[in-house]
Amino acid sequence: MIATLLTDFGTADGYVGEVKGALLSLVPGATLVDVSHEIGAHDVECGRLALARYWRRFPEGTVHLVVVDPGVGTRRACLAVESLGRFLVGPDNGVLSPALLVQGARAVALETPASAAPTFHGRDVFAPAAAALLGGTPLDALGAPMLSPLVRRTPEARRLDDGGIAGEVIAVDRFGNAITNLMTRRADGVVEVDGRLLPFGRTYADVAAGEPLALIGSSGLIEIAVREGNAASQLGLSRGRPVLLRRDQALSPVPGGLAR
Amino acid sequence: MIATLLTDFGTADGYVGEVKGALLSLVPGATLVDVSHEIGAHDVECGRLALARYWRRFPEGTVHLVVVDPGVGTRRACLAVESLGRFLVGPDNGVLSPALLVQGARAVALETPASAAPTFHGRDVFAPAAAALLGGTPLDALGAPMLSPLVRRTPEARRLDDGGIAGEVIAVDRFGNAITNLMTRRADGVVEVDGRLLPFGRTYADVAAGEPLALIGSSGLIEIAVREGNAASQLGLSRGRPVLLRRDQALSPVPGGLAR
Amino acid sequence: MIATLLTDFGTADGYVGEVKGALLSLVPGATLVDVSHEIGAHDVECGRLALARYWRRFPEGTVHLVVVDPGVGTRRACLAVESLGRFLVGPDNGVLSPALLVQGARAVALETPASAAPTFHGRDVFAPAAAALLGGTPLDALGAPMLSPLVRRTPEARRLDDGGIAGEVIAVDRFGNAITNLMTRRADGVVEVDGRLLPFGRTYADVAAGEPLALIGSSGLIEIAVREGNAASQLGLSRGRPVLLRRDQALSPVPGGLAR
Repeated sequence: MIATLLTDFGTADGYVGEVKGALLSLVPGATLVDVSHEIGAHDVECGRLALARYWRRFPEGTVHLVVVDPGVGTRRACLAVESLGRFLVGPDNGVLSPALLVQGARAVALETPASAAPTFHGRDVFAPAAAALLGGTPLDALGAPMLSPLVRRTPEARRLDDGGIAGEVIAVDRFGNAITNLMTRRADGVVEVDGRLLPFGRTYADVAAGEPLALIGSSGLIEIAVREGNAASQLGLSRGRPVLLRRDQALSPVPGGLAR
Repeated sequence: MIATLLTDFGTADGYVGEVKGALLSLVPGATLVDVSHEIGAHDVECGRLALARYWRRFPEGTVHLVVVDPGVGTRRACLAVESLGRFLVGPDNGVLSPALLVQGARAVALETPASAAPTFHGRDVFAPAAAALLGGTPLDALGAPMLSPLVRRTPEARRLDDGGIAGEVIAVDRFGNAITNLMTRRADGVVEVDGRLLPFGRTYADVAAGEPLALIGSSGLIEIAVREGNAASQLGLSRGRPVLLRRDQALSPVPGGLAR
Repeated sequence: MIATLLTDFGTADGYVGEVKGALLSLVPGATLVDVSHEIGAHDVECGRLALARYWRRFPEGTVHLVVVDPGVGTRRACLAVESLGRFLVGPDNGVLSPALLVQGARAVALETPASAAPTFHGRDVFAPAAAALLGGTPLDALGAPMLSPLVRRTPEARRLDDGGIAGEVIAVDRFGNAITNLMTRRADGVVEVDGRLLPFGRTYADVAAGEPLALIGSSGLIEIAVREGNAASQLGLSRGRPVLLRRDQALSPVPGGLAR
């Protein structure tokens, strides 16, 4: 009985403590697994991208609690979802999209008890629903089917005539790596950003320290990185910056660590 | 066997690792639940307010380890507390007040073993006491009764003749919501801060984006918030700022999300 | 079956979620214990010092996952280590030194599966190895013996003719305490830094608020602290700053909290 937690609550205010207490009071034997409480306040997009990384890697039966919920207390629905044998609970604002977009996903709209605090559904709606799912309550017993939950998609990259792709930066990680929406299996060609051409490498050490490169990241998307540096700050990259994969040119990485 | 942890240690120095290792060496099957290690260094008040939120929400038998302890190594006592069926361990500096102020709470003063590091009672005094409580040792076996442990109270709000209340900001949360000491069940009247009058709403979305409002927060206290904004920075609010609940006026929230 | 986690991943990007999912998919009953994910990006030294604090405090059989890995994807080896009955997995960059330097420690070089992402060995190499160890796979089944893994040592302090020691600051903790490489059991003499002489105290409260002192920290090393203050910022201390223990002088702490 595993429940993971992803929120934008931080931890110092005690809100996460309240959610965990609510969960463990209902299911004392549950295994709680923190993913993060450091999602930027109200940053639904960041929550969605984090969730995309991990939700399928947990065993079937896992319940993922996801509370990045700027619309708490509005009429936005509260969802419980079943997808690929995992369960998820969270607001209907697109944060659960990675699971909703999988064929066969089912969603129900959770009831909001009259006693729920209008500003804290994490504690009063989502935690009880997660507890019910951990305890074996079937999804359909938690609410009426929700036929068209909101989804957010990663901005689509445009395939170009010459085999290249035009995309953009969708996230910057803690290391300053700029993750793009360019999905590819072939690390050939060059990556162009702000008129600068970057070679492909297999890993950071394929260039010299301080040099930028492109590589296929651990989730299959092209990333822009600087070896032992911070690509986002050094190259001035942030979400939305256009990035081009050009197949008609090639550049060799300046040999770095591997070659020395 | 659940033990929660609240500290101001941060995590990067490894101190939390030491505390967890000490606990699990003594009680290998314990379930450790992190509440926070990001309480501001030495911020006893912040620790107290966080603890107030969560300690009762955990099942009976839970042991709450609370180490925000600027006076470590002084003669301040080390406490173990039993209150409403939960146990708490921590320094006698008021951080445990939420549990101590409950009728029937009992406290004992923990012995400090000669081998304890004078600067790390979290590892050498509190963790072993928590482990003993997890293992079923009765409270009274841990030390002599402590009849008047230090308590800190939330500053008291003053009831006014016209039914209003005069209080202050007691905390600012991660979202910039300013939490006051004004407890009420009736969201009527207006809230005055710095000469500005704020309407009551039920939730953030009762005003337009960027607009401030007052609401009854998830712990029953009046909060000042800005929809999709940061009330503390936008209105210049911090701990201690006077706030007035005025019953003799009323303001309607400017309709926001719910109405659109 | 306890696995601890120490990384420099932060949590918001979801990488830690991926590692935990990989672990729990392989060993659903494992107890995961977060030590920290807030080690500075690529700060191997900080990871090593944190590990030194906690690794031996966990029960025998514990598996410590340690991923601070700036060289991921280079030819640096991936290690699994057995030391004092505990297991560790992590890169061969010195971060595991506290366990490797113990007599009788054994290390093997992990295979990197062809399917492993070159930039995420935490998920694809170290987590599976940790899972295997949790499941009882013997160390030798995980790879070939690694006879001379890299180690990093704390800079050695120099013993002086007069019985004093010359050392340096090796870390600054969250409270601003400057931890030195001066190991001693006798808190006598004075500590000199930047020409300033500091008295020894037993704990912070042995001086008045705002005053600096030296003390023997909870791991046996001399620390420089300021009562209710931040020694690193007030005295301008950072890693590498020379510190001298002088046995030929003595200073009494200005009495503080204990005396009042």
